Amino acid sequence: MRILVTGACGFVGRHVLDELMRAGHTPLACDAVKPAAAHPLPVEVHTVDLRDAPALKKLVAELTPDACIHLAGIAFVPMGWIDPELVFSVNLLGTINLLQAFHSAAATARMLVVTSAEVYGRVPGTHPFSEDAPLTPDNLYAVSKMAADLSALLYARRYGVHIMTARPGNHIGPGQSSHFVTSAFAQQIVNIARKKADPVLKVGNLECERDFTDVRDVAHAYRLIIEGGHTGKAYNVSSEKLVKISVILDELCRLAGVSPEIVVDPDLYRPLDARPRLDASRVRKELGWEPRIGLSETLADVLADIERQT
Amino acid sequence: MRILVTGACGFVGRHVLDELMRAGHTPLACDAVKPAAAHPLPVEVHTVDLRDAPALKKLVAELTPDACIHLAGIAFVPMGWIDPELVFSVNLLGTINLLQAFHSAAATARMLVVTSAEVYGRVPGTHPFSEDAPLTPDNLYAVSKMAADLSALLYARRYGVHIMTARPGNHIGPGQSSHFVTSAFAQQIVNIARKKADPVLKVGNLECERDFTDVRDVAHAYRLIIEGGHTGKAYNVSSEKLVKISVILDELCRLAGVSPEIVVDPDLYRPLDARPRLDASRVRKELGWEPRIGLSETLADVLADIERQT
Repeated sequence: MRILVTGACGFVGRHVLDELMRAGHTPLACDAVKPAAAHPLPVEVHTVDLRDAPALKKLVAELTPDACIHLAGIAFVPMGWIDPELVFSVNLLGTINLLQAFHSAAATARMLVVTSAEVYGRVPGTHPFSEDAPLTPDNLYAVSKMAADLSALLYARRYGVHIMTARPGNHIGPGQSSHFVTSAFAQQIVNIARKKADPVLKVGNLECERDFTDVRDVAHAYRLIIEGGHTGKAYNVSSEKLVKISVILDELCRLAGVSPEIVVDPDLYRPLDARPRLDASRVRKELGWEPRIGLSETLADVLADIERQT
Repeated sequence: MRILVTGACGFVGRHVLDELMRAGHTPLACDAVKPAAAHPLPVEVHTVDLRDAPALKKLVAELTPDACIHLAGIAFVPMGWIDPELVFSVNLLGTINLLQAFHSAAATARMLVVTSAEVYGRVPGTHPFSEDAPLTPDNLYAVSKMAADLSALLYARRYGVHIMTARPGNHIGPGQSSHFVTSAFAQQIVNIARKKADPVLKVGNLECERDFTDVRDVAHAYRLIIEGGHTGKAYNVSSEKLVKISVILDELCRLAGVSPEIVVDPDLYRPLDARPRLDASRVRKELGWEPRIGLSETLADVLADIERQT
């Protein structure tokens, strides 16, 4: 299929392009920014800001893709409070503009709208959340993603079109911004291993647990959903395991062969916050997805990627 | 209190201004449009479009109100599918801009963000929906209102400010647009009574039930909530009764003394759609609200208002 990937220059976008090409699809790429000169993409990138509805509609009409994987958006949760107008404009109105552009110019295309496990909120609980769990977002980023998710599913129902959503947990892997904890640790650890920094590592709350899935496994799930997912359904994408951040840190240090002093930085420290564990049995059972890359392999690849680039 | 009313020129806005003045408050009015020359407001209207964040912030900084009742928005449910970008821009981003404007320029003000019973969706059920019921919106208008509602409550929690939401059912009364069923019937019935039209009345599905509360009772509830509501809480506002549209029609005909032929217009006909009954016990028990105007009185006032104006 000719599959338009929005946000193609982002962390997940690059992995999705790779995944689609390996499976024999023809990815088409768009993003609000051009790819950095040091990181060209394997396909031409059409520059379009999803907030510009006429430009987006024109692009969709020109390309008339068979499908779309919609990744574009502000992915950094705290940005919801820092710049709420930006987050709602991009994450929600951008998605609405995309849904409208396909509705008017490529109505038969399959579409996967990627939102976030944040839609479930942070209700502590002992059993994992299925896609039917109530949505109780607890921050503005999560509200923007919930509204985009529900809108996409309502389009599917109203117009009888083939739209699905994916609700991924945290995903990590090569190429992630150091705004995110794994890459932030890995960057510091590489600097320490190379003697470019003192053997002191600043950390936040290491007891927090997160659901870390390798971004390449996530990209694989997205391909399976766009190929065979059922219209009007949401799909959780998750390893289904919660891992303490201290485990990530210990493994990165072991892989890099360093033993830095660990210092808690009050600016990074957040209170212990419970996250729900996701139930990803729908994507596993309906589409045969399984995570294939273990945590240690992911972290080794993250370190190798940072070593290559710095 | 000096209370800013957004959407002051609208159907509900005018009744809220009256309610606030009668209770000794000083309403301040803003709207995206100026009041029609034939319907001046009792107070000066500041013209501002909520989508214009800098202008809105400037207005809030100049007025520094003690409180705000936020009514502005697209109120016509089908508009969510007709122009989704407009509905999300006004109903959601407009609300976000207002929350941000108060956060930065009048952070101690009390605020009531009015959303809609549409946030609960249209799940048929035998027992009434309290404010803790899951939100399962089933159209884009409802998604815009749900996102605005949850965002407002999250602002209250994050910043410790005094923000509440109201989720009203359908409300009717003098001054409502003939986009809405009661006023549409009343307009036709007045024309028939005056022999300006043949005694034929076009209707949709008369079996649909709606929760009709008098707009003046709704305005009363909003005043009680802004005066005494608890921060971070949502309040359902409803008579708690579902009334068939046929009952409205029969009563309007009786009051006007006409017996027109009833013709079902396929363009108006919608399939029977279930609406949840609301549980408004929170606003009744915490704040002493009760609806005070019976259906017959409301409908007589609607007819009298249309007779006066046409």
